[in-house]
Amino acid sequence: MFRTEREFIQWVQRQAPGRVAGLRLGIGDDAALIDVRRGHELILTADLSIEGVHFLRHLHPPRAVGHRALARSLSDVAAMGGTPRYALISLAISKRTSRAWIEEFYAGVFALAQRFAVTVVGGDTALVPGSAAIDVTVVGEVERGKAIRRSGARPGDQLFVSGRLGLSALGLRCVRARAKPVRRRTGTPRPALAGEKMNDPVHTHFYPEPRCALGQFLSERNLASALIDLSDGLSTDLTRLCEASHVGVRVWADHIPVPAHPAGRGLRSVEAINLALNGGEDYELLFTVSPRKASHIPREFRGVPLHCIGEIRRSKEILLTLPNGNQVPLMPAGYDHFEKLNPPAKRRPSQSR
Amino acid sequence: MFRTEREFIQWVQRQAPGRVAGLRLGIGDDAALIDVRRGHELILTADLSIEGVHFLRHLHPPRAVGHRALARSLSDVAAMGGTPRYALISLAISKRTSRAWIEEFYAGVFALAQRFAVTVVGGDTALVPGSAAIDVTVVGEVERGKAIRRSGARPGDQLFVSGRLGLSALGLRCVRARAKPVRRRTGTPRPALAGEKMNDPVHTHFYPEPRCALGQFLSERNLASALIDLSDGLSTDLTRLCEASHVGVRVWADHIPVPAHPAGRGLRSVEAINLALNGGEDYELLFTVSPRKASHIPREFRGVPLHCIGEIRRSKEILLTLPNGNQVPLMPAGYDHFEKLNPPAKRRPSQSR
Repeated sequence: MFRTEREFIQWVQRQAPGRVAGLRLGIGDDAALIDVRRGHELILTADLSIEGVHFLRHLHPPRAVGHRALARSLSDVAAMGGTPRYALISLAISKRTSRAWIEEFYAGVFALAQRFAVTVVGGDTALVPGSAAIDVTVVGEVERGKAIRRSGARPGDQLFVSGRLGLSALGLRCVRARAKPVRRRTGTPRPALAGEKMNDPVHTHFYPEPRCALGQFLSERNLASALIDLSDGLSTDLTRLCEASHVGVRVWADHIPVPAHPAGRGLRSVEAINLALNGGEDYELLFTVSPRKASHIPREFRGVPLHCIGEIRRSKEILLTLPNGNQVPLMPAGYDHFEKLNPPAKRRPSQSR
Repeated sequence: MFRTEREFIQWVQRQAPGRVAGLRLGIGDDAALIDVRRGHELILTADLSIEGVHFLRHLHPPRAVGHRALARSLSDVAAMGGTPRYALISLAISKRTSRAWIEEFYAGVFALAQRFAVTVVGGDTALVPGSAAIDVTVVGEVERGKAIRRSGARPGDQLFVSGRLGLSALGLRCVRARAKPVRRRTGTPRPALAGEKMNDPVHTHFYPEPRCALGQFLSERNLASALIDLSDGLSTDLTRLCEASHVGVRVWADHIPVPAHPAGRGLRSVEAINLALNGGEDYELLFTVSPRKASHIPREFRGVPLHCIGEIRRSKEILLTLPNGNQVPLMPAGYDHFEKLNPPAKRRPSQSR
């Protein structure tokens, strides 16, 4: 273990890149100093990752914990159509944690940060009696007036989603069932470009890929009227988008892209749809596009498929059209911290978070 | 307790002020959006407050926990000579926590935020199995090039400190000894202006006052060559300033402003000096001033005394001159999370953090 805070901070400093445009002062002083490009607004977001809630020590390798903690906040910046620039990492670690765990955790953080040209400029550390807690703050930039909110959906807009939904929840199920060999849990991930790992549930669960480039594409070309990222499950995040926009939606169940992977083949279609609707942690983007712009949305963007799964309506109902033509109300059944305390009278899939 | 995350977020939203210059989008979307004033740099800082480390559930009223959590980060902005503008509050709370505790916690956050014109623009919340953890990120502004780092001290500079040191540690001692009536632990604090509470150890411990106005004064008038806030104790933070500046210092023990309060009268002078040197959590400012500017430092600033306690030297030793004229090396003995794991062979005062 590190002997002093100073030793730890100097170690973190060495992992962070030196000179970065816009960065005036990084780790090591009372605070960081950054310059903001003219004509840009700043995006601010913070996300907690808690041991026992968002990750499990015996299931999630530390590199994945670091990756996922940062990915959550990068995804929020993607969901504004912005470019992430800086991160602050606050890490409360159990006194029992090994130095190797901390080093692997930061390896996960820095590998993802580097790929997205994000600079770690600060944070805080504490050794705590209980389980680990991580809070990641990310500062992003977006051209003034170009941020895409979740409140801009209008009746008639088409509803699109990136990637495949439910992969992360399916991955967690695989990990829990120890269906995957152990090397998966310690190996160094390669970047999940449009490649063979993109549809691997375990890889997607451990190393989700924030859709920043897609968010920027939608923002720069003014294509999306509303945008949100899928962190808590399609059913929950779609409800949030509709409530913020004061609209309703009709979603076609058989248009929802469910996992296309051997691990998902054994699933009944209801089970697959349930994972896609309520699984959470997909970090894909959900966005609405006005009818006259819908044709500008490509079938895939940099290897990530984009699917039209529904239509925004004036009526505030959130409806799911089943393959047999029946319509059912779609209830938000993704993760809700407070609902865990007051569980509603229905079953939801078990999750790590 | 709140029934859903939505209910909680809407409640927090109602506590936050509505229209604020520079704020484009506050709580409720994927992220916040802010505008940065032209000619300014941004200051970024994050600080953890952990139950069992930085505060104790049975000793610290929730309002004080909220105040202290935000004050830590505001003090970091003060230590750069900047003006705090926005805050993100990430709160991981135990499932056993009452709604009253959360409301009082936020009352402490919002009361302090309002006095410093800081807007809470986001954060995150999770209900956790273990003890509470809070991470506060504050975004501040400073005129370009005017931030004061801890690395600018030069030989010959005078060393100044604001306020009285050791008050917070003395306050914790009073609270532990239950020397104060219970009303102290639940009452609503009035702002600690230059008034009767400024020297009250318990009030100072529960409701430390970040020295933002003093930091801005030093920055605007280019008075300080180096600046740091005293979060971990004079001995530790002075060592940090000297190391960053590649200098040493001689401190006169009898110039260090120790607590001037009835609660401190029973202390032997060695005990008082020990609290002042190693107590921590004073959130006063420690700064260096070149000899030709030292006469511009007032004896007090807005009711807060400013004392010259030493002199920066080329030799990198950190020396304490005792009242009898003897010089002893001053060892960093404030709080260090990692040292707690590997304790050095010496005694340090017990602290809450």
